[in-house]
Amino acid sequence: MAITETAVKLPIPRVPRGYRMAGVHAGLKRNPTREDVALVVSDRPATAAGVYTTNLVHAAPVAFDRARTPGTGFRAIAVNSGNANACTGTRGLDDARRMAAAAAARIGVDEAGVLVLSTGIIGEFLPLAKITAGIDAVAERLGSDAEAAVTAARGMLTTDTRPKFAGATFTADGVEQTLFGMAKGAAMIGPRLATMLGVVLTDAALAPADAQRLLAAAAEVTFNCVSVDGHTSTNDTVLLLANGAAGAPPLAGAALEAFGGALEGACATLAREIADDGEGATHVLRVEVRGCTSRDDARRIARTVADSPLVKTAIHGADPNWGRIVSAAGYSGVVFDPGRLTLHLNGTLLFRDGAPVPFDGAAVSAAIRAARETLIELDLDDGPGAIRFYSSDLTAEYVHLNADYHT
Amino acid sequence: MAITETAVKLPIPRVPRGYRMAGVHAGLKRNPTREDVALVVSDRPATAAGVYTTNLVHAAPVAFDRARTPGTGFRAIAVNSGNANACTGTRGLDDARRMAAAAAARIGVDEAGVLVLSTGIIGEFLPLAKITAGIDAVAERLGSDAEAAVTAARGMLTTDTRPKFAGATFTADGVEQTLFGMAKGAAMIGPRLATMLGVVLTDAALAPADAQRLLAAAAEVTFNCVSVDGHTSTNDTVLLLANGAAGAPPLAGAALEAFGGALEGACATLAREIADDGEGATHVLRVEVRGCTSRDDARRIARTVADSPLVKTAIHGADPNWGRIVSAAGYSGVVFDPGRLTLHLNGTLLFRDGAPVPFDGAAVSAAIRAARETLIELDLDDGPGAIRFYSSDLTAEYVHLNADYHT
Repeated sequence: MAITETAVKLPIPRVPRGYRMAGVHAGLKRNPTREDVALVVSDRPATAAGVYTTNLVHAAPVAFDRARTPGTGFRAIAVNSGNANACTGTRGLDDARRMAAAAAARIGVDEAGVLVLSTGIIGEFLPLAKITAGIDAVAERLGSDAEAAVTAARGMLTTDTRPKFAGATFTADGVEQTLFGMAKGAAMIGPRLATMLGVVLTDAALAPADAQRLLAAAAEVTFNCVSVDGHTSTNDTVLLLANGAAGAPPLAGAALEAFGGALEGACATLAREIADDGEGATHVLRVEVRGCTSRDDARRIARTVADSPLVKTAIHGADPNWGRIVSAAGYSGVVFDPGRLTLHLNGTLLFRDGAPVPFDGAAVSAAIRAARETLIELDLDDGPGAIRFYSSDLTAEYVHLNADYHT
Repeated sequence: MAITETAVKLPIPRVPRGYRMAGVHAGLKRNPTREDVALVVSDRPATAAGVYTTNLVHAAPVAFDRARTPGTGFRAIAVNSGNANACTGTRGLDDARRMAAAAAARIGVDEAGVLVLSTGIIGEFLPLAKITAGIDAVAERLGSDAEAAVTAARGMLTTDTRPKFAGATFTADGVEQTLFGMAKGAAMIGPRLATMLGVVLTDAALAPADAQRLLAAAAEVTFNCVSVDGHTSTNDTVLLLANGAAGAPPLAGAALEAFGGALEGACATLAREIADDGEGATHVLRVEVRGCTSRDDARRIARTVADSPLVKTAIHGADPNWGRIVSAAGYSGVVFDPGRLTLHLNGTLLFRDGAPVPFDGAAVSAAIRAARETLIELDLDDGPGAIRFYSSDLTAEYVHLNADYHT
């Protein structure tokens, strides 16, 4: 898959006050047109929060950042792609610290104020000389315009076809404040490559505990509700920096919750973008499950449907195959009454009261074929629990991308 | 996929004493050379046991058989393919009973002594006239030779390329006794088609509780350890009949456990055959997990590895991608210490003590390419729990078979 500039959705959201960023090619990726080291700098100390992979086999940068967040006094995030620094043991942890120290030295801040992100090949040590040279080079190019944002976002890509952005503005205490997000990838999407990474920056001021709570809550209904192949990566990380450069007081009360809503919206945009850019995808699956006794039950059903290879291939083939969808819900592990289940596909009723209903198969098939997004709605009629989950279809191209590459 | 006679593994195991069977084409499948109704008759009342899908959305024949087993006095199993009688509500249950009654009337036994199996399209009512005519026809052809066994086994196939058999003999109380198994399918393997079905027949005599216990134990480590796409069907069923025609007393003590071992061996053969015949498969994945605190933990890890699309595509591409395997274990939900994990692929050590070890990638890749079966061994070094799990690789052909078919 090639990175196609034209696929970047315009406009690029505005970089919040007090942040500069850039990306450069430092030789980790073979293609010299691909950025592989990026740096995000906050001109003033920022609050940081993070959410991380639940995989027991997690990479060194995950361990490094997790030990530091939530907290205050952060000044930079150093990013590399092309190497995940995963399954690299004690040396990997040392390398993560050296990468942070190189960035700290270059921009003249305390090493404790730097976080790191890595994605790429598992099981190889970081090429620190290249990364240090890359950090030196990228520090010369820091900016806050769209070009700076695009090169920085490209610096975290692996098999993605395009960088992914989201932005929002909100007004609190009479001050307009800004939120900017960028992300890469989806689950384990490439050959020996891992990961979704996300960086969200705001010029609002946030207490560390608030930042952590709101980021975790947003991730729970966005990044935790997206899947390309169901394979949880070793490196998944989303970081939030809040530097207060807008000049408003730390968010509290209704303003804090308004920020939480904007954060969730930005994360939702990035999560959907990740599914949309799933390897080989021809359709985005949007699975909406409601009527469950809890949100966790709804998510479990949605994930089972969204991960079923039979559902994913059916949508690829524009086949309104309700039997695969209903039976996937049935093996999710959630207890429900199939006799009360209702299924709509792109708005057409296919199944109700435990039995199929007549529908125009050709029309439903044509509707699947006509749209990039397929909407699968399941209602269990048993409670208030609901979730939205994104996935992509399963295509021969996915198999080619993941089988026809040799280590 | 075409059913290829030449793919039947010879010799066909011997049908135990007191059983006759056959299959015919009754018009449920379009191709007139494909059997779609089969009948298995025991000349004397048999003990029956059954294990069934755990899917909440289960088919009418599952509900029908589950209510009758374990028990005694069984005389026949009536089978159809081409229609699953699933998601068919109350009428589906009535139809299952009518199918049993038709078989009972035709061979002159009590309707309570008949079990039924269905597989095929979900959500359509059984074509009872065709099935009844098929039962009438097949009852004329019952036999106990290899041809009878092959036509009966073909009568339960859907997208399988070949029927699957297993056999065993054992001696207890001085009498040689026989065990015969046949099966179809793997998980949800076809477009709107469901299911694995299995029938195991023995001329040993078994008490119902013993038959049920041993069948459940055997299924636990065989049919419950096989996956093609992780999609649990609405119709999965394995039935065991034991008619005592060998003339030996009911099995007890050591003889009973010996039978259990033979039963497990036959089920293991059938389970592996199902993975081997997985849609589009070019490799069988044999995942052996040991060193866990429990067998359930081992199975959970094995299933997660065996179901990962990234592992399955890597094996298809002959890529010794240990990162995908180790990280799949890491997100299985089982808590373990990655630093004590050891991974062998086809006998070559790839990962130990939390870190990769040097290996000859070209040689390991060539070994994957050269063999139909790929052996993945994971040792967690934490206890006695172990399992063997079979799966198949994920190929573009699987996607084509499941996407390029329209309802």
